[in-house]
Amino acid sequence: MQKERSISEIRRDLVSGDWVVIATGRAKRPDDFAKSEKPVFSQPKDKCPFEEFIPSALAVYGEDHKPEKDWLVQVIPNKFPAFGRGVCAVMFKEGIYEWGEGVGFHEVIITRDHLKAIPDMKDQEVAQVLRAYQDRYLALHNSGCVEYISIFHNHGREAGASISHPHSQLIAIPVIPPDIARSLKGSAAYFKKEKKCVHCAILKHELKKKSRIIYENSSCVVLAPFASRSAFEMRVFPKNHEPQFELISEKERGEVANALRVSLAKLSRGLKNPDFNFFLHTAPTRNLKKYGHYHWHFEIVPKTAIWAGFEIGTGIEISTIAPESAAEFLRGFKI
Amino acid sequence: MQKERSISEIRRDLVSGDWVVIATGRAKRPDDFAKSEKPVFSQPKDKCPFEEFIPSALAVYGEDHKPEKDWLVQVIPNKFPAFGRGVCAVMFKEGIYEWGEGVGFHEVIITRDHLKAIPDMKDQEVAQVLRAYQDRYLALHNSGCVEYISIFHNHGREAGASISHPHSQLIAIPVIPPDIARSLKGSAAYFKKEKKCVHCAILKHELKKKSRIIYENSSCVVLAPFASRSAFEMRVFPKNHEPQFELISEKERGEVANALRVSLAKLSRGLKNPDFNFFLHTAPTRNLKKYGHYHWHFEIVPKTAIWAGFEIGTGIEISTIAPESAAEFLRGFKI
Repeated sequence: MQKERSISEIRRDLVSGDWVVIATGRAKRPDDFAKSEKPVFSQPKDKCPFEEFIPSALAVYGEDHKPEKDWLVQVIPNKFPAFGRGVCAVMFKEGIYEWGEGVGFHEVIITRDHLKAIPDMKDQEVAQVLRAYQDRYLALHNSGCVEYISIFHNHGREAGASISHPHSQLIAIPVIPPDIARSLKGSAAYFKKEKKCVHCAILKHELKKKSRIIYENSSCVVLAPFASRSAFEMRVFPKNHEPQFELISEKERGEVANALRVSLAKLSRGLKNPDFNFFLHTAPTRNLKKYGHYHWHFEIVPKTAIWAGFEIGTGIEISTIAPESAAEFLRGFKI
Repeated sequence: MQKERSISEIRRDLVSGDWVVIATGRAKRPDDFAKSEKPVFSQPKDKCPFEEFIPSALAVYGEDHKPEKDWLVQVIPNKFPAFGRGVCAVMFKEGIYEWGEGVGFHEVIITRDHLKAIPDMKDQEVAQVLRAYQDRYLALHNSGCVEYISIFHNHGREAGASISHPHSQLIAIPVIPPDIARSLKGSAAYFKKEKKCVHCAILKHELKKKSRIIYENSSCVVLAPFASRSAFEMRVFPKNHEPQFELISEKERGEVANALRVSLAKLSRGLKNPDFNFFLHTAPTRNLKKYGHYHWHFEIVPKTAIWAGFEIGTGIEISTIAPESAAEFLRGFKI
């Protein structure tokens, strides 16, 4: 920025139009965000429901002939689903209100090693997880009345993981979620006005500016967003303009796996194994012609702060580290 | 609802249009949300920065002649403000991005008793806190380039309180926050279409339906929203259509104080002193003619769940108790 910083800055997200606050006057050093080496969230292996091969698995990866012995990744239906398997949501009215049955799909993607989290994996192991994401997406996107498929990963108790064995989740739902709707709307509005993709414009600006770039390989860029909503937030973008994650090639999948693993390993090293979530933002499943302007990406959000009354009441997070400082700190860790 | 419940329901918020999920299949009994009696977050009184009267206080309530001895409520500037006191935000460009200086006001409203939280106060004590909210709002709403004034209260560590001595905060900022903008937009759209206030329509429906009403007095209604974003979420509405909180009369202030206190005491009793946030949603400070459709209210959000990857990635919370069950449970506690 061009001038001496004041107590704080307000920054506007180019896609959503939302404001964030970077409270540089309250700023901490990057190290201050590191948890003192805390015990890793780990449940006993002998009672873990994800240890064994589950014969009713929806998909399995590993040696083809003996999956029960050699499985590396398995996908199972969630035992306590948030959405029940079904066809289309029947919609009802209660006077002025609208509601529907929660039908869709809720699946769990499990890697074999009880203790090996994504930051500790090899690139090809992460690539196998991404392949499972892709395959299950493609298996479900035409099913029933699925409008959106959300794929996400919770690491650690504070990030909402209830089972410590590393796993991701997929939830296919009959509506476009509010945050996705807003992201799509901002992307469409920018495309209409500027005749180009908003995320491509961001990548061009960031690659020139360099101060918020954390990592780069031949297909992907990892950056700290200009209007970060959380301290140490990271996004993994494909360099090519691609609306649909599920269509990435095998080669690109390897590069995405590398970018995701390196980002998470940097975070894990820099902040001493913090709890985190990551999730995919990609185009909805239907009317794909409408979403040619969109640019899929992963968002990584470590649990570094509590959302209190101001954040919950306004939707503005007060972040106590500038994304430029977070990016510089994370860039420094060689993985 | 008219039929047997399935695993879950999706419900649409009438104001924002956003969806929530009520996962009745994963439902817990209301009691299961109660924390096992945990130690109250309490820092030593002798080191508390809010114990003494602060001569530079911006406002003080109590005996007029000896505030330093007899103060009951004092308002002070936040020592570590998220916004620096100033006139108007100077706006800058960084290529495609927009940012500005974080100028505004950040104040702390402190009640005297080190241990007495709002659920434990008397109505008139809460009314004095509300009077401080009102007075400071009126003192600041014409200052500099203030566009919105957020007033909120954090109770307990998990709700983001860093000092245990009961206090609220006020942050006056130079932009309309995203969640407020969306709430205003939904309210305006409903008004345009239906020629009435969306919150008045909700109150009418709820008072007839009764199943989500938690408490009522002559001026206020407390309810669990149809599309609750959090388990045990509550909203306190004035029965009269009023866009601006800061204009309530002394009599109404007493009724609001009663409704707020009773709600928080029910929550505290029912869930065994949970951490919570509450915050005010009211019209912005400028162009008030534009916001005649709005209806101010308090929102109370207890910390009962962690926002994990699905919630952060989609903006949809999976709530594990229906608002009807939460309301029935809370109604049962006589305060």
